[in-house]
Formats: sequence, structure tokens, C-alpha cells
Amino acid sequence: MNFAIQPVSSKLAPAIRKKIDTKTKPVGSLGQLENIALKISLIQETTEPKIDNPHIIVFAGDHGIANEGVSAFPQEVTYQMVYNFINGGAAINVFSNQHHIKLQVVDAGVKFDFGNSPLLTHAKIGWGTKSFLHEPAMTVDEYEQAVLKGAEIVKKVHQKNCNLIGFGEMGIGNTSAASIIMSLVCNLPLKKCVGKGTGMEGSLLSGKIKILEQALSHHEIDTNNIKEVLTTFGGFEMVMMYGAMLQAAELKMAIVVDGFIATAAFLAAHKQHPEIIDFAIFSHCSDERGHKAMLDFLKVSPLLNLGLRLGEGAGCALCYPLIQSALKMMSDMASFESAGISDKED
Amino acid sequence: MNFAIQPVSSKLAPAIRKKIDTKTKPVGSLGQLENIALKISLIQETTEPKIDNPHIIVFAGDHGIANEGVSAFPQEVTYQMVYNFINGGAAINVFSNQHHIKLQVVDAGVKFDFGNSPLLTHAKIGWGTKSFLHEPAMTVDEYEQAVLKGAEIVKKVHQKNCNLIGFGEMGIGNTSAASIIMSLVCNLPLKKCVGKGTGMEGSLLSGKIKILEQALSHHEIDTNNIKEVLTTFGGFEMVMMYGAMLQAAELKMAIVVDGFIATAAFLAAHKQHPEIIDFAIFSHCSDERGHKAMLDFLKVSPLLNLGLRLGEGAGCALCYPLIQSALKMMSDMASFESAGISDKED
Repeated sequence: MNFAIQPVSSKLAPAIRKKIDTKTKPVGSLGQLENIALKISLIQETTEPKIDNPHIIVFAGDHGIANEGVSAFPQEVTYQMVYNFINGGAAINVFSNQHHIKLQVVDAGVKFDFGNSPLLTHAKIGWGTKSFLHEPAMTVDEYEQAVLKGAEIVKKVHQKNCNLIGFGEMGIGNTSAASIIMSLVCNLPLKKCVGKGTGMEGSLLSGKIKILEQALSHHEIDTNNIKEVLTTFGGFEMVMMYGAMLQAAELKMAIVVDGFIATAAFLAAHKQHPEIIDFAIFSHCSDERGHKAMLDFLKVSPLLNLGLRLGEGAGCALCYPLIQSALKMMSDMASFESAGISDKED
Repeated sequence: MNFAIQPVSSKLAPAIRKKIDTKTKPVGSLGQLENIALKISLIQETTEPKIDNPHIIVFAGDHGIANEGVSAFPQEVTYQMVYNFINGGAAINVFSNQHHIKLQVVDAGVKFDFGNSPLLTHAKIGWGTKSFLHEPAMTVDEYEQAVLKGAEIVKKVHQKNCNLIGFGEMGIGNTSAASIIMSLVCNLPLKKCVGKGTGMEGSLLSGKIKILEQALSHHEIDTNNIKEVLTTFGGFEMVMMYGAMLQAAELKMAIVVDGFIATAAFLAAHKQHPEIIDFAIFSHCSDERGHKAMLDFLKVSPLLNLGLRLGEGAGCALCYPLIQSALKMMSDMASFESAGISDKED
């Protein structure tokens, strides 16, 4: 599937910067909020940016690798947490309710048969991936279905007048998949990319690294071939998120990236379409080892650094009020002129 | 004036931690939000913490030192910005409206005669301080009035059932006062404490440092005597904030500390009453040189790090949704048991 992503035009940049700089505050004193205001204004090609019908989409999927001793929680926690999402009890429910963000949970490939629920979108590509310790996680056909489905989901949300999507995930074992993808895309040694996930510390962590090194050595991979990387090691939720992010950029929507796993999906998307960076806001730097190196690789500064290590899109929801503040600065703050305040040149 | 500040009791700590740890998330995975939930629960002595009628109080005052070449903006910007606050056009108005936080602006000593306004509290101690380049900024009597007034203002807010106050300020020249107070309280060389304020860069910054070194050399100060430090170098808004923060801690309210100047007032309060730390939440690490060293001196981690350099209590307003999220985690998230999810011990 091909995506046509255009970088944002810088035509309005001087007018946007002027508007920001004449607000009643020392130039630059709102720091990163000013960057966010500029970024969303450029995406929307306006000096009056606004967020419409914001969504967080949480993609869920199971991973064959989860049963190889890489996770502190058993695999069934994926479906149990999806139930928790659709029943409203998880962190992401609490934080997205708090900020009136619409939550959509996507079964991209959980090993469980869910009934219908208003929050749940059925998009199951398979009943969990295969264990990439032994074979590729998915087939090329499954990969393509997942990318397409991710794009379709975003198109539907876009039709509801949404112009900002936060991307989150759930999948026991997916820090393992994300670590390998990071290692291949960023060309970094695996041990710099593997962290404790939901709770693998000490010898459990060194065991996790060993298993993933073994997995990596089982496959001959062309690291420039993102399809091959994702087919071999990805999760259905990650590949679907990859397609969804690319579609969002094609549609000129703002993309809010959550933590380690969402950033791994973004890394893959960025490798294919570097222009996607113009549309992306990085919600937070996670406590998961490797996330900071991912953000450094992309040369981006996240909004929050709270030591989160959760996923679910929680970082997207938590940073959302800051994005709103940036836009409220644009719309609601007085200018030096309107407030009759001496500029420093006076 | 004496304050009776009791450290918080740790009696409920095990019950609070247990509640946090049995929420449906890996233990510790909400990072600093978990610390905030614990802190406010301990302050309020409950496992069901909540914020009532939150306020941000912005103390404004003028500084004689402002006319000695230490500021990028002229002194009249203090009163012009106070007008901007009471007319609703400043960043702090926008962000406190956004989060439904009650804003109170206090004229602690601005060189201007304001009329009445619903947002403004008249508490003028003097028409700006004296220039501490030549003489002490205020008299001991003025100092004592300011501390008392700060305490009174907090008592009134407390009577309105408020249990959380964010502390902000406005005062052209007050980064200079704050830098000297920091240098004396933290025992750090002045040049590590002086930053660009509203916009003193390059040779302007070295000029500012030189003037402040000169000012410091004019006074013999016992750095253990906070009254002497604040009388000599403080601003009316800073001394009033000092009294206000101590009163808030005595009344077991949560204190949200804004940026460089508010943290300088907090440093002074902390030197007198180290127990105040139990009640304090640090909203952000500012871009003003010296702020990070202040936070390190206090051994605290701020919630945000957005490169803000504004004051006004803007950081308090911006971090407020994170504080709310921490408490919503306590009240609204499911536990592993209630959600029927396998704990990792299963």
C-alpha cells in the first residue's frame, strides 16, 4: 500500500511566528508550547489552529514471543486488559475521559474472541503472531491486511472531522518486538534497546536480552526493507499502527505518539516516509530503556518526562492539555499591542 | 511571625501504596503520577485524596534594582502586566481558565495605583522596593507586614475550602533578587544563579551578573538569617509569597511551586521550616539558568520540563491536569481484583 505524504509548507511560518512573538510574554518564554503551536499551525496551514474531535486509538494484539520467557505478565493479560479498556477501568479510560478525548480500542490480533462493545473495533488479522524465536511473526499477506486496516480505521475517524489522533497499544510481549525493530532501524546493539517492559529486572532482563539476541540471529534481515522487518518481528497492533500513522500524515492530521512501542511503529513509518515527522508530536519520554535513544535518533523532544512505563496511549492523553494550552495561547492571549504593554524595544 | 508546620504522618503510607500498586497497571508504571498521588494522600491523610477549589495566587511587586540595568523590560511592565492579568489577557489567565483554577492577583508592592477589580487583592506594602545596589530593599517592618499579609491571604483562601494553591509572581527585576537569594541560601557562586530573565543575553547578561556581584558586595549578610537575606534583597511579592507558602503548609494545603522566583521564595521558606517540603509539588523546571540547580538543591523532580521562562504561575496551571490525573488514578481506575486481571504472581 502506498501513501502520498507531503511535507508541511513553510509558507505561513513567518506569520505564525509573528503571532506567537507578539503575545504578552517575553519572546520564546513559553518554550515547547510555542513549538507545538507552530507545528499544528503549519500542519493546518493557518494562524488559527484548532483541534477537532480528538481521538486516541489503542491497537491491541498478541505476540507469540510472549510465551518464550520475555514478559513478566502472562499472555492472557492482553485480552484481560482489552476488557478493562472496554469496561472503562484502565488508565487510558480515566485520562481520556478526563480530557474529553474519544477512545477507540482496536482488536488488531488478540488471542481472544471479544463480543461487541461501543469502544471496540474488530480488525483481527490473526489470533496473535507466531513466535519470531522460530519463524516470522506474520505472513506478507497478514502484514498487508494490517497496514490497510490501519489506514481504513484512520480514514473513518478523519471522516468524523477528527484532526488529531493519539496512538497507543496493548500487547503482552510487544516491548520485545519493539526492541528488535528499534535495533534494526536505528542500527543500535540490542542490549541498548531492551528494557524491563512490564517488570523484567535483574536476571530476568538479561534472560530477555539473550532470548531476543537468539531470535535476531535466526533471521536474515535487510534492515532497509521495512516490510521484511515488520513481517518478521512486528505485532499486528504495531503494523496496523504503522499503516494508521502513515494514513494520518497523508490526511494532514496531527499524530501524537505514545511510548516505546508506538515510537517503534513510528520509526518504521519514518524510515519509509521521513516527511511524517512534520505531523508528529511526541507525548513523553518513557522509563523503558531505549525510548530516549529512539527520540534522540529522531531528534525530537517529548512533552513529558514522567517516568511512565505503561503504553495504552496514556502519555498521549496526559500531554493533551499541553497541546490545548499551546493552541489557547494562540487564540486567547492578548498581544502587546492589544494589551497596551511596552515592548522591550520601547 | 511564627508558623507551626508539622511534617506529614507516614501512618497511611502502606495503605496508600497498596492502593496504587493494585491498580490495573504494572507496579510503578505511572511514574511521577504515583508520587503525586502518594504525596497528596499523605498531606490529606486519606486514601481518597481530592482537590477542592484550587487557586493560583500571583503576587506582584516592583524592584528598585530593575532600574539599574538588569532587566530587558522597563519597570512599568510590572503594572502593565498586572492590568493584563486583571483584564484576562495573560498566559496565566488563559491556562487557569482552561483548567478551572481560581486566579487571584495580589498587589504586594507595585509602583502603581490600581483601581478595584474582582481578580485583584490590594496588599501593597510599598511602592516598589529600594534598589539593593545601594541600600536594603525594604525595612524590617515592611518585611514583617509582607509575611503577615501573605499568611492572611492564604487563611482567607483556605476558608473558602481550598486545599491546593499554586504560587506565581510578576515583577520586573525579580530574577535578580531571586538569583541573589539562591546564591546565599544554596551557597553557590552568583554566576551559577544568574540567568537571562526576560531577555538579557550575551553582554547584557554579563553586565547583569556584574551589577549583582557589586550589590552583593555592598551588604554584610548572615546567610543563616533568612529575615536579613529577604529584607536586604527580596521583593514584596517574594516575601509575601514566603509567608503565604509557610501558612499553606501550616494549614496542610498542597503547595504548587512555579518557576525560578517562586522556587527562590520556597528556598527561603524551606531554610526556615524544612518540613514544608512535604507539602510541595514542583510544577516545572524553567529555562532560567539556576532553576535546575535550585531543584537539585532541594532534591526534587519537577513535573514538567518545557523550557518555560515566564513566571506568572503559568507552570502551576500547566501541570495541574497531571495532578488531577494522579488523583483520578486513585479514584477511577480499576484494581486487578475488580477487573479480574491476572497479577504477575499468578
